[in-house]
Amino acid sequence: MITVNENFLKLQSGYLFPEISRRVAEFAADNPNAKIISLGIGDVTQPLPPAVIEAMKKAVDDLADPRHFHGYGPERGYDFLIEAIIENDFRSRGVTLDKQEIFISDGAKCDTANMQEIFGTDNVIAVTDPVYPVYVESNVMAGRTGPANQSGQYEKIVYMPCTAANSFLPEPPDCPVDIIYLCFPNNPTGATASKEVLSKWVGYAKEKKAVILFDAAYEAFITEQGIPHSIYEIDGAKDVAIEFRSFSKTAGFTGVRCAFAVVPKQLEVSAKDGPAVRLNALWSRRHSTKFNGASYISQAGAAAVYTPDGKKQVQRIIDIYMNNAGLIRESLSKLGYEVYGGVNAPYIWMKTPDGMKSWDFFDLLLTKAHVVGTPGAGFGPSGEGYFRLTAFAHAHNVQEALNRLAAL
Amino acid sequence: MITVNENFLKLQSGYLFPEISRRVAEFAADNPNAKIISLGIGDVTQPLPPAVIEAMKKAVDDLADPRHFHGYGPERGYDFLIEAIIENDFRSRGVTLDKQEIFISDGAKCDTANMQEIFGTDNVIAVTDPVYPVYVESNVMAGRTGPANQSGQYEKIVYMPCTAANSFLPEPPDCPVDIIYLCFPNNPTGATASKEVLSKWVGYAKEKKAVILFDAAYEAFITEQGIPHSIYEIDGAKDVAIEFRSFSKTAGFTGVRCAFAVVPKQLEVSAKDGPAVRLNALWSRRHSTKFNGASYISQAGAAAVYTPDGKKQVQRIIDIYMNNAGLIRESLSKLGYEVYGGVNAPYIWMKTPDGMKSWDFFDLLLTKAHVVGTPGAGFGPSGEGYFRLTAFAHAHNVQEALNRLAAL
Repeated sequence: MITVNENFLKLQSGYLFPEISRRVAEFAADNPNAKIISLGIGDVTQPLPPAVIEAMKKAVDDLADPRHFHGYGPERGYDFLIEAIIENDFRSRGVTLDKQEIFISDGAKCDTANMQEIFGTDNVIAVTDPVYPVYVESNVMAGRTGPANQSGQYEKIVYMPCTAANSFLPEPPDCPVDIIYLCFPNNPTGATASKEVLSKWVGYAKEKKAVILFDAAYEAFITEQGIPHSIYEIDGAKDVAIEFRSFSKTAGFTGVRCAFAVVPKQLEVSAKDGPAVRLNALWSRRHSTKFNGASYISQAGAAAVYTPDGKKQVQRIIDIYMNNAGLIRESLSKLGYEVYGGVNAPYIWMKTPDGMKSWDFFDLLLTKAHVVGTPGAGFGPSGEGYFRLTAFAHAHNVQEALNRLAAL
Repeated sequence: MITVNENFLKLQSGYLFPEISRRVAEFAADNPNAKIISLGIGDVTQPLPPAVIEAMKKAVDDLADPRHFHGYGPERGYDFLIEAIIENDFRSRGVTLDKQEIFISDGAKCDTANMQEIFGTDNVIAVTDPVYPVYVESNVMAGRTGPANQSGQYEKIVYMPCTAANSFLPEPPDCPVDIIYLCFPNNPTGATASKEVLSKWVGYAKEKKAVILFDAAYEAFITEQGIPHSIYEIDGAKDVAIEFRSFSKTAGFTGVRCAFAVVPKQLEVSAKDGPAVRLNALWSRRHSTKFNGASYISQAGAAAVYTPDGKKQVQRIIDIYMNNAGLIRESLSKLGYEVYGGVNAPYIWMKTPDGMKSWDFFDLLLTKAHVVGTPGAGFGPSGEGYFRLTAFAHAHNVQEALNRLAAL
């Protein structure tokens, strides 16, 4: 008799964004004339850069022509894209990578969710609180946790609280952990990690024989000098860290689907019976068995991000979003709110007024200002009393939303 | 201290196609003037139908225009595609499906590999021998097997031999099994299952409280009347079966990436503590947590497959491949080979001459005729003494390959 994966039954019902959608849909149904502005989910709104559009059209043309037709691509991705990534995202920052260390995929969400599969189920994971829910839920499904408690946190997971009190930068835990999820620039807090902070983590992982899963999906939004874009800018990081990147937010690919993971060849873990196992080989096996390559069209579009025109056009889009972020920061500060993030990240993390519960603030903003944000508590208990606004809306909508907040 | 997923270490080294690539590359390096023709991997060669090209170009244009821009799509896929699938692939064959029962993905390989995640690791899986390796390897990784024996078969898996002696149609096993992988039209044998055969499986699954994972990726190649295209053409199948479909072979999407899985709502499994769990709900959770939707461009292209022009154009391409299949069947038969498949499937499954080992026959064809096929033994021990040829090459290459075989 067949059985289900009982770990799935531990999952808490409300994935954050469906619950937000539900409340918004309900309000919209009751208030059909309300012009709702969303600064909620982190989805882009700017059209794709012309260089990307052109490259994708050419790729579509290739598929119409028997001489240029592309069937199955390499599961790890096309060299034309891998080489552009190595040159532009890493060599330019002093990081040398081999082509075999890059794995093109269809999304950083997929990669961050799937990477845990190459590790034993006995490992203890550490995550920040607040946290991007996918890191946690993929581990719940895999059986690396116990049930959830009343605050929605799962047994066996080590949560590292991030609040204004520690500048949203947790200390490495003093209990044993094996897999550490870090995300900088951070979703949702917008916090960044300096070289010193990341060096501390790399040293800790080495000492504890842990692995860092480093989510750098937002690195393109870093505006300040000196902040590392890649964890491999830290000496020794290749011995302990896997890095995730995405074209979703950088170049507007949320609907196009292209991302990549970096798994250094020198990153080894001992198997139970002794011999060292290369995580690169394990991920390669997982990637080629349970995945079949990203779309040729998406990869062609992603490669165009690295052309001279593509770079300029992408930067212009990022500037638009970061202008929004600056506007939100400034306006909210003027209104007396305590505001974090928004300098090196498209996320603004604000304190709710007078210690209001974050879902109450969500409801207030929705019903009184018709503005949608994301309640901090949705990212974990330490997010209670905080609220996330994203900088991805059109500038005129951002301004309108801020006007409404001012009038509130 | 971190540990790896030790189940990965049970995996046999040579995934079939990399090993073929290695031998071909070695031969090509030593024989730079040899014109190698591949009838090996099942990859398409015909350019995409004009209706698909046009729809994908329009989709790219949408992404260039703020009024039509698409960011994150629904994780389950766009309604425009789901509705076309339900109408054309199912309602036309008397099968009623709900929109919530279709999950658009980036490939049937991914879906068939990932689906096992919603089941307990204590389940016993049954697969045919020969078998598409992904069904097996995804279960090895998940820990549902013991180590492999000398013939490459894994402990705890129930293998169902398929040879000419049983017309490549195995009987349901008489030992307990929980998850049954079936693929019709079959890769690699090209065998199809009649309604009677599938009814027997559905009845068996009901009786044993097992679930059938039905891979119908090749249904578009069925040319004979009366052969079911979907397992849901069988009464009661919605209570026991999940079905996988793909645009890869049907419409040439191997490089574009679009497919779907059907998980009926009425398909329930009891959890350990009693209550029935809908597999549809579990897969929905898995799909939305570890995946982020197929490319908007790919989905727009897939929808065009169902337009009047798209249907005609796709049929023309399938006819080209099936003409190749007929040519291969006929020519090999004339040469005295024992040949199967190729009537309702793009695969021809032939017996090697004089009981030659299938890898020896591979080497013979490669070195003497510069033709690449797939050794049957690569799909399992019962594939030993067989050889797979695919019908996806250009017609002139197929003819040239057959001429060389005749001269051999």
